[in-house]
Amino acid sequence: MRAVARRLYNSIRALPIISPHGHTDPRWFAHNAPFSDPVSLLLTPDHYITRMLYSQGLSLEELGVVPLTGAASGAALDPRTLWRKFAAHYHLFRGTPTRLWLDWVLSAVFETEAPLSAANADRTYDRIAEHLARDAFRPRALFERFGIEVLATTESPLDDLAHHAAIRSSGWQGRIISAYRPDPVVDPQAPGFAAGLARLGELTGEDTSSWRGYLAAHRQRRAFFKQMGATSTDHGHATANTADLSEREAESLFGRVLGAARNGAAESADAELFRAQMLTEMARMSLDDGLVLQIHPGCWRNHNASLYERFGPNVGADIPLRTDYVGALRPLLNRFGNERSLTLIVFTLDESTYSRELAPLAGHYPALKLGPAWWFHDSPEGLMRFREQTTETAGFYNTVGFNDDTRAFFSIPARHDVARRIDCAFLARLVAEHRLPEDEAVEVARDLAYNLPKQAYKL
Amino acid sequence: MRAVARRLYNSIRALPIISPHGHTDPRWFAHNAPFSDPVSLLLTPDHYITRMLYSQGLSLEELGVVPLTGAASGAALDPRTLWRKFAAHYHLFRGTPTRLWLDWVLSAVFETEAPLSAANADRTYDRIAEHLARDAFRPRALFERFGIEVLATTESPLDDLAHHAAIRSSGWQGRIISAYRPDPVVDPQAPGFAAGLARLGELTGEDTSSWRGYLAAHRQRRAFFKQMGATSTDHGHATANTADLSEREAESLFGRVLGAARNGAAESADAELFRAQMLTEMARMSLDDGLVLQIHPGCWRNHNASLYERFGPNVGADIPLRTDYVGALRPLLNRFGNERSLTLIVFTLDESTYSRELAPLAGHYPALKLGPAWWFHDSPEGLMRFREQTTETAGFYNTVGFNDDTRAFFSIPARHDVARRIDCAFLARLVAEHRLPEDEAVEVARDLAYNLPKQAYKL
Amino acid sequence: MRAVARRLYNSIRALPIISPHGHTDPRWFAHNAPFSDPVSLLLTPDHYITRMLYSQGLSLEELGVVPLTGAASGAALDPRTLWRKFAAHYHLFRGTPTRLWLDWVLSAVFETEAPLSAANADRTYDRIAEHLARDAFRPRALFERFGIEVLATTESPLDDLAHHAAIRSSGWQGRIISAYRPDPVVDPQAPGFAAGLARLGELTGEDTSSWRGYLAAHRQRRAFFKQMGATSTDHGHATANTADLSEREAESLFGRVLGAARNGAAESADAELFRAQMLTEMARMSLDDGLVLQIHPGCWRNHNASLYERFGPNVGADIPLRTDYVGALRPLLNRFGNERSLTLIVFTLDESTYSRELAPLAGHYPALKLGPAWWFHDSPEGLMRFREQTTETAGFYNTVGFNDDTRAFFSIPARHDVARRIDCAFLARLVAEHRLPEDEAVEVARDLAYNLPKQAYKL
Repeated sequence: MRAVARRLYNSIRALPIISPHGHTDPRWFAHNAPFSDPVSLLLTPDHYITRMLYSQGLSLEELGVVPLTGAASGAALDPRTLWRKFAAHYHLFRGTPTRLWLDWVLSAVFETEAPLSAANADRTYDRIAEHLARDAFRPRALFERFGIEVLATTESPLDDLAHHAAIRSSGWQGRIISAYRPDPVVDPQAPGFAAGLARLGELTGEDTSSWRGYLAAHRQRRAFFKQMGATSTDHGHATANTADLSEREAESLFGRVLGAARNGAAESADAELFRAQMLTEMARMSLDDGLVLQIHPGCWRNHNASLYERFGPNVGADIPLRTDYVGALRPLLNRFGNERSLTLIVFTLDESTYSRELAPLAGHYPALKLGPAWWFHDSPEGLMRFREQTTETAGFYNTVGFNDDTRAFFSIPARHDVARRIDCAFLARLVAEHRLPEDEAVEVARDLAYNLPKQAYKL
Repeated sequence: MRAVARRLYNSIRALPIISPHGHTDPRWFAHNAPFSDPVSLLLTPDHYITRMLYSQGLSLEELGVVPLTGAASGAALDPRTLWRKFAAHYHLFRGTPTRLWLDWVLSAVFETEAPLSAANADRTYDRIAEHLARDAFRPRALFERFGIEVLATTESPLDDLAHHAAIRSSGWQGRIISAYRPDPVVDPQAPGFAAGLARLGELTGEDTSSWRGYLAAHRQRRAFFKQMGATSTDHGHATANTADLSEREAESLFGRVLGAARNGAAESADAELFRAQMLTEMARMSLDDGLVLQIHPGCWRNHNASLYERFGPNVGADIPLRTDYVGALRPLLNRFGNERSLTLIVFTLDESTYSRELAPLAGHYPALKLGPAWWFHDSPEGLMRFREQTTETAGFYNTVGFNDDTRAFFSIPARHDVARRIDCAFLARLVAEHRLPEDEAVEVARDLAYNLPKQAYKL
Repeated sequence: MRAVARRLYNSIRALPIISPHGHTDPRWFAHNAPFSDPVSLLLTPDHYITRMLYSQGLSLEELGVVPLTGAASGAALDPRTLWRKFAAHYHLFRGTPTRLWLDWVLSAVFETEAPLSAANADRTYDRIAEHLARDAFRPRALFERFGIEVLATTESPLDDLAHHAAIRSSGWQGRIISAYRPDPVVDPQAPGFAAGLARLGELTGEDTSSWRGYLAAHRQRRAFFKQMGATSTDHGHATANTADLSEREAESLFGRVLGAARNGAAESADAELFRAQMLTEMARMSLDDGLVLQIHPGCWRNHNASLYERFGPNVGADIPLRTDYVGALRPLLNRFGNERSLTLIVFTLDESTYSRELAPLAGHYPALKLGPAWWFHDSPEGLMRFREQTTETAGFYNTVGFNDDTRAFFSIPARHDVARRIDCAFLARLVAEHRLPEDEAVEVARDLAYNLPKQAYKL
């Protein structure tokens, strides 16, 4: 079985990377400035890392995360000190994918010692810093060295995509595209929702205080994103709820949530219904403009109230929720699920839905595809559970290959490599058990690593 | 470990097949006419196949599924064209159990090429058609060749079991029995519920507009089914809810649901309560007549509304639901769960309940046994999850062996073979880890494959 | 991989046993009297065993379990007869952890034949009885032979801990400590709640009919338990709900539940809220006195009503429930989850929460740690699922090693041995897949087996 897995893996390991969904910073590729230092590159912005260190008693301030108000203590912010602290706690990551990715970044990208340890902290720090100063470690050079064929970032409709424009006009051939993530102007409970709608009106010349103008503004921004290379939208709601209201009901609902938001008091049931309705509206627009619709539901954002007050979002305090799909997606699916020209990619943080809900839904509705194991679950074990629990019912061809979904640019090749290894291990098992001939497994391995993400995301 | 698994498997591979629950057509065995053509035999009626092809953009019409109204387009219905289309999409089934079963049917039953491909579509079609014309491929001959000792079909109380009677009076020795599936006359929300009750009254001479007469009619039909070989009843509700009302409450509830059904408006809470109460009534009757009670809950039938309107039920749009058993079964279990003479076999489409709810319940209540991995979950992975997540708490002897639960007659041996292989693989692991001596594993393998289904279903 | 696993296991197999949570009887070690007979030692009190035998049609009376009222039938209570009955049904335990533990107890502790069988029932009975009469099989001698470094029992605040006092004053060096389990005086729906509060008042001299006096009484008993060696409290609620009421609200709630309990009618919503609030109160006290707080939620106790009436609790009719943690724990976590000096260990019977809720929560909150696979899930498969589904997100260092949680004293070494083997198997996989160097795996193996439970439980 191992020999088969190795053969399969060798047949695909060098394929270009398709990264159809993620959160890297387009500024890097627009400016192509060197990355500054090991800590602000690898440690502070990675909430996988800060989360784990925080759980074991380090404070976020110690880790260089800057509070929203008040000055951070100067001493703690010395990068070398932070790096040493990190190195001294590297054992906490044993068995986690973070450890895998970091070992790879240290050894394969920076050609330094791995694993990190208190003993080699200063040496590795110096080595990384040294490399970062070299041209070969600037963003564009690494993009090419990593073999990335296309990389999608994620932006709000209020973003002017200036970095994307700069990349396109720079003459550099690297393909960096955006994705349309309208949560800030779709979620009535998002901070600054009303102001966001006003801004959306300015950007588009539409009257975003009316339902029709609001929808027209979305259409216009989607067209702009598409022009800048985007092939998809993305929606991060707490639930997978969808709705299919009449136009009159939707218009009235819009009036209520906007009024409430202006008064600073978004009513919860209305807000949830509005988000639900907007997924169906987005699907309707996707039928027109062809953008692929992604839904990333099921997370309680900012679960730790006091930390959220002090540091804001994205500090590792987002916790997955039990998520329903069967009832939740039905309004949208009953409206558009039979459309062959729509692509709706659904993700989950609730693995109990893989075999029970998502694979059966994707194995039936033409519009629906399954996004890969996500966030907490893109570990070797999690990726394997995804294949083991979805393939029997949805097959391989209702899935869409791997998403790294990361802001950690340096880890992208390692993440794709892990996904490729696990897929090959799963396929090798099918071959070993005489469930699939090896020549077909080779084809599937290539489809999962390369063809399916290109097709599903229209890249 | 593999050597142990092989020894275990070789010790049971040739055992007769016990198929205590399924959906084959008794007409086949009554008439013993040749099957008509490859497509109407293997493709169109198999919703595992049409579901997957539909999910990848083929229309049901293209696949030969006939809409409820309006003529189907003649061209699409040419079987050879359909077969070619199927062959061209055979890669979609990679990694699914459908692929395993079909490969086996092609190679072992029809001795033709597997896997199917665009290249061999015509050859395989001809080969199958050729075989189907031969006496050796008539239903009864295959029944014998497949080594089936007993095969249960599933019929409504309104069925006259004429085919079963014909089989019994034909002199043929194959044991084909029915199972009592009263959903159409138990579910107030089933289409034609009121008419069904009237018909039930005609069949039995009971006054089925009264609670007592209705129950008496069930008792009579159960007796008739039992006389025609049935040893079990089966109930396919959306939930596992049971109730234990007083006779007066039950009588009043019956009046309400019947009244509502006659007015075409079954009230949802009443309907659910009525189905719940009827499970307990059926258990009560089972204590008298000894029929084994099966519950198959947890599916949202006909999730795709527009498809249901056009094609009716069973087109692959049934989606599993999160299912509660602990509270739901309690009324029934508290009434009859301690009865040693009752056999209640519970199935699930929600695998998260295996270790949490079902194994603990079956590992305690004398009446309760666990049905095998079902429907979406009778894949190699799903069958293994069943053993891994139930054995620790329920052991092997609170399970009942394998059910194929299929209408695909030709796949029955393949399905049982997969189940036997997986059970042997699981047992081999126990042997390899010194958790069970091999001689005991041999005994368990035989029990799972043969003795337990016979005992549990009283066959 | 097996060779690595073996090396890892050999490096830790002889480490002392840390048993930080369980239900053995302190009287055994206080009196150090010989255990009486094989049946009352190994069979009757073990609800894993009686549960399984009951599920397969044996009555509890036949198994020697004594009904609450009425005399037990004399004949059935002859231990040798019971042992023979047990032996004749030993096959029911194949594949269960009970079988593993019992085989080990028979062969390693009693040096007799395993597996048990009808054929050797008399011989094994005699052999065990013979051994039990010897000094080497008295409780203290076995404690030492088993290599137990520390063993925690569990007592109510109303317990005087006389056995613990006797152990301490006996001069024997074995470390037996208590744990504070206040459910009887925290759960308003527990039988005798009001009387328990009165008794708590007598024991402490506090006015336990007032909220302040009630809390002060808890503080006093906790201090007493701590003085007698306790390092932890334990709470077995049906849900994981917590609350964070104002003092005034809590005081008023206490008045309501106490009033209702005195009238014999604890109101359900109030009772639940009171239990929820008390978890937060206990956390507050833990911040002062340093006791580790354990929560064991998610079980429907005494699901079988008629059995409960006849035999009382703990006869194997407790059934796990779907359990929410994300919303349920938030009030407590938002109040105290960021405290580094608090240790809150959470367990589950709902394995679907491992990857979805518990690992993400423990991988973030400094106060929170994950208890090991528990009760129905401390089988080899269950222990492996725990590692596979929590390590990726929580790592190893947010877990706390193994708990045997048992009243079956003789099985303690076997249970720890199984846990050690599984952890080593999991680590060996990481080593084989080049995810962890073997020297680090050795360190982790030792941490899981010995260091983490000592640290987490402050032993």
